[in-house]
Amino acid sequence: MDPTPLDLADPLAAHRECFIGVDTDLVYFDGNSLGRPLRKTGQGLSSFVTGPWGGRLIRGWDEEWFDLPLTLGDELGRIALGAAAGQVAVGDSTTVLLYKAMRAAVAARPGRTEIVLHRDEFPTDRYVADGVARECGLTLRWIDTDPAAGVAPEQVDEVVGERTALVSLSHVSYRSGWRADAAAITRVAQQAGALVLWDLSHSGGVVPVELDAWGADLAVGCTYKYLNGGPGAPAYVYVAARHHDELTQPVQGWMGATDPFLMGPTYTPVAGVRRFLSGTPPILGMLPVRDMLGLLGEVGIDAVRHKSVALTSYAVELADAHLAPLGVGLASPRDPQQRGGHVTLRHPAMQQVVAELWRRDVIPDYRDPGGLRIGLSPLSTSFAEVEAGIAAITEEVARRS
Amino acid sequence: MDPTPLDLADPLAAHRECFIGVDTDLVYFDGNSLGRPLRKTGQGLSSFVTGPWGGRLIRGWDEEWFDLPLTLGDELGRIALGAAAGQVAVGDSTTVLLYKAMRAAVAARPGRTEIVLHRDEFPTDRYVADGVARECGLTLRWIDTDPAAGVAPEQVDEVVGERTALVSLSHVSYRSGWRADAAAITRVAQQAGALVLWDLSHSGGVVPVELDAWGADLAVGCTYKYLNGGPGAPAYVYVAARHHDELTQPVQGWMGATDPFLMGPTYTPVAGVRRFLSGTPPILGMLPVRDMLGLLGEVGIDAVRHKSVALTSYAVELADAHLAPLGVGLASPRDPQQRGGHVTLRHPAMQQVVAELWRRDVIPDYRDPGGLRIGLSPLSTSFAEVEAGIAAITEEVARRS
Repeated sequence: MDPTPLDLADPLAAHRECFIGVDTDLVYFDGNSLGRPLRKTGQGLSSFVTGPWGGRLIRGWDEEWFDLPLTLGDELGRIALGAAAGQVAVGDSTTVLLYKAMRAAVAARPGRTEIVLHRDEFPTDRYVADGVARECGLTLRWIDTDPAAGVAPEQVDEVVGERTALVSLSHVSYRSGWRADAAAITRVAQQAGALVLWDLSHSGGVVPVELDAWGADLAVGCTYKYLNGGPGAPAYVYVAARHHDELTQPVQGWMGATDPFLMGPTYTPVAGVRRFLSGTPPILGMLPVRDMLGLLGEVGIDAVRHKSVALTSYAVELADAHLAPLGVGLASPRDPQQRGGHVTLRHPAMQQVVAELWRRDVIPDYRDPGGLRIGLSPLSTSFAEVEAGIAAITEEVARRS
Repeated sequence: MDPTPLDLADPLAAHRECFIGVDTDLVYFDGNSLGRPLRKTGQGLSSFVTGPWGGRLIRGWDEEWFDLPLTLGDELGRIALGAAAGQVAVGDSTTVLLYKAMRAAVAARPGRTEIVLHRDEFPTDRYVADGVARECGLTLRWIDTDPAAGVAPEQVDEVVGERTALVSLSHVSYRSGWRADAAAITRVAQQAGALVLWDLSHSGGVVPVELDAWGADLAVGCTYKYLNGGPGAPAYVYVAARHHDELTQPVQGWMGATDPFLMGPTYTPVAGVRRFLSGTPPILGMLPVRDMLGLLGEVGIDAVRHKSVALTSYAVELADAHLAPLGVGLASPRDPQQRGGHVTLRHPAMQQVVAELWRRDVIPDYRDPGGLRIGLSPLSTSFAEVEAGIAAITEEVARRS
C-alpha cells in the first residue's frame, strides 16, 4: 500500500517496519484482539531456546526466570500503566487473574454483599463475577447504559453504597471503545468504602493508564492485544502497595509462597504482589511482551496515544463521509478523548460484511449486535490501511444496501 | 563425552541428537525439573511467529488455536497418559489446574469433609489443598510414610471412609521417585466413595500412565519436565468422561463457556473437558510440547520407560559401588518397578556438594533433607553422562568425608 499524506507526516511511521506482515496488502483491523508480532520476536524466541533454556537449563530459574514475572511487571507498570515498581506481576490468563483479584477483594470487604459491574462488560469478566458472587454469597449489581456508551462516574455514584464490596469495570469497553473516567469512578467507589478493579485489556499499551494516580486498588489486563505478546500470552495483575498485606488470593501455589519448597503443610503468602502468583510462570510467553515493551518504552505511551487518536479519528472521518450515507452508524464515542484504540461501526448486515471482508484479506472483527470493530494498533497500522479498509467496508455495505 | 558400551547398545541413543546442548560436556541431571529443548523447537517457534501468528493473525483462533488445548490434550492422552480422546485439556499452570480439579471434586462430594494427601506431597499440591480445605470447610488428612517411600494402597485403605471427599496423590513422588500403585489406590479410594486426583508431573512422558485403565477420576500434570515444554509451559488436566456433566470448576471463563461471546450475565459450562478451561489458552507455550509429543509418539512410551529403568538402575549401581562406601544412602526405591525417572541420593553434605557440582557443570538438584536428585530424561541423557556425573559426585562427597 502506498503511503498517504498522513503516513508521510506521521513521526511514528518508521516503527511499522518493526512488525511482521506489514509489507503485504492485508488490512489488519484486529490489533485490539491479537497484535502483530515484532520481527525481533521470532528470532528472540529461537535464541531463547538455544541460549537460556537450552544452555542454562534449570539454572535459568535462579538467574532470571524466578523474578521475571515481577521485573517484567515493573517494566509494564513504568512504561504503560502508571504504576510504581513492586505492584505488577505477570502470569496466568486474564480470567484466572480476574478470579484471584475478585476473590481477594470481596474477602477484604466482609459483610458487603454486592459486586457492581457494567451490563456490557466483557463476557469473561461477567462470568468470573457470576462465579465469585455465587460461591461467596454475593449478588451482582448491573449498571445499564446505552450500548454505545460506557459508565459515567455519576452512574457509579448512584449504585455504590455500604453494600458494595467491589466495583469491577473495563477502562475501555471492548464493544464500543468507550473510555471510562477511571480516576473519578475510583474516587466515588472508594468513598462508598468499596474496592475498585480495572480491566485494562483494551487500554494497556494504547491509552495512557495511571493506576497510582487514579488511586486504583486492583487491575488486570491482557498482553496479546496492544502489547503484542502473541495468542494466549500471559496476563498481568496490579495490586496497590497499600493492600499488599491485606489482600490474599485463593489459588495458593508455591510461586506465591514465602518458600517454594517449605516442608510444612501450610501456605504462607510471600510479601508483595508476588503472592498473586500461583504456579510456575510462563516464561516463553513473556518474551514477546518484553520485546514490545522495549519498543513502547522507546516511543513513549503519549506518542502512541497521539497516533491512536489520529487513526481512530481518521476512521471516523472516512466512515462519516462514505458509510453514514449507507446507514452505517458510529457505535463508539465521537469525542476522541472518550475513546480507546478502536471504533465500532454498526449496520444490520455487518456480520455478512465482515465474513466477506475476511475473504478479501480485510480483517476487522464482528461483535453482536451488528458491530464491526476497527482496532488500530498505532505502531503497526498505517493511515493507508485505514483508507483501504474503509473503502472495502463501503463496497461491501453498498452491495447489501 | 565418549559413548560407553551401554550407549552403543542403546537403541534410543540416536534420538539424543534431537536435543539442544547434548554436544557439550555438561552433565544434566535435572530433566525432571526442566527438560532440554528439542532442536526443532527453536526453529518451530520462529516459524510460528512469522507463519500462523504473523500471517494468519486473529484468523488463527478459528483455524487452529481455539481447539488446540483439546487436540493437544488428545495427543497427550493417547501417547503418554492412557486416556481416550476428549478427556484431557492443556492450559493454565499445574497449580491453577490443581485448584480447579480439587474444587470440582469436593463440590461433587457434598457432606464429605476430608481431603487425603501424602505428608511428603509436592509443596504446591499441599498449598492448594490447604487453601481449598479452608475455603470449603474441609480438613486435610495426612498419610505418613518413611521419607524414602510413597503411599501404599493399604495405607490409603486405612484412612479413607465416608468422610473422604478426595484422595490427591502424586503418581511418582517428587522427592524419592517412589511410584504409586495407582490402579490399586484408585480402587480402594473409590470403594470408600471418594474421588481420586493424580498429579502426574513426575511421571507424564517417562512412566507409562494408564488413566482410563486405572479408572482415575481426575489428573493434572506439568509439561516442562519429561515433556520438554520449556520453563512454565502449560499444564494439563484429565477429567474422566463419566464425570463431565457432574464436575464444574470455579474459575468461570469465556473459554470454558458454551458461547465465549454470549450477551447474558450467566456462565453456562460447555460440555466436555473444555469446561475446565478458563481464559485464553497459551498457544506459544503449547508448541514445544507438541514437538516433544511427536518424538514420544514415534519412540513409544514403553521404549522410553525401558531406557529410563536402565538409566536409573545404572545410576543406582554406580552409587552402590562408589558412593555407598562414603556414607551416601539411596533415598529412592531399589526396585526399579517402584521407581519413576529419577533417583535421590542422601548425605548430610549434599547441599554443599550440589553447589560445587553446579560450578563444575554437573547439574543435579537439591531437595531437603540432604537429597541430591538425579533426574534422567531418557531421550536426552546418555549412560556416559550418568558415569561422568556419578564420578563427579563421588569426588565432591569424598572431599567432604
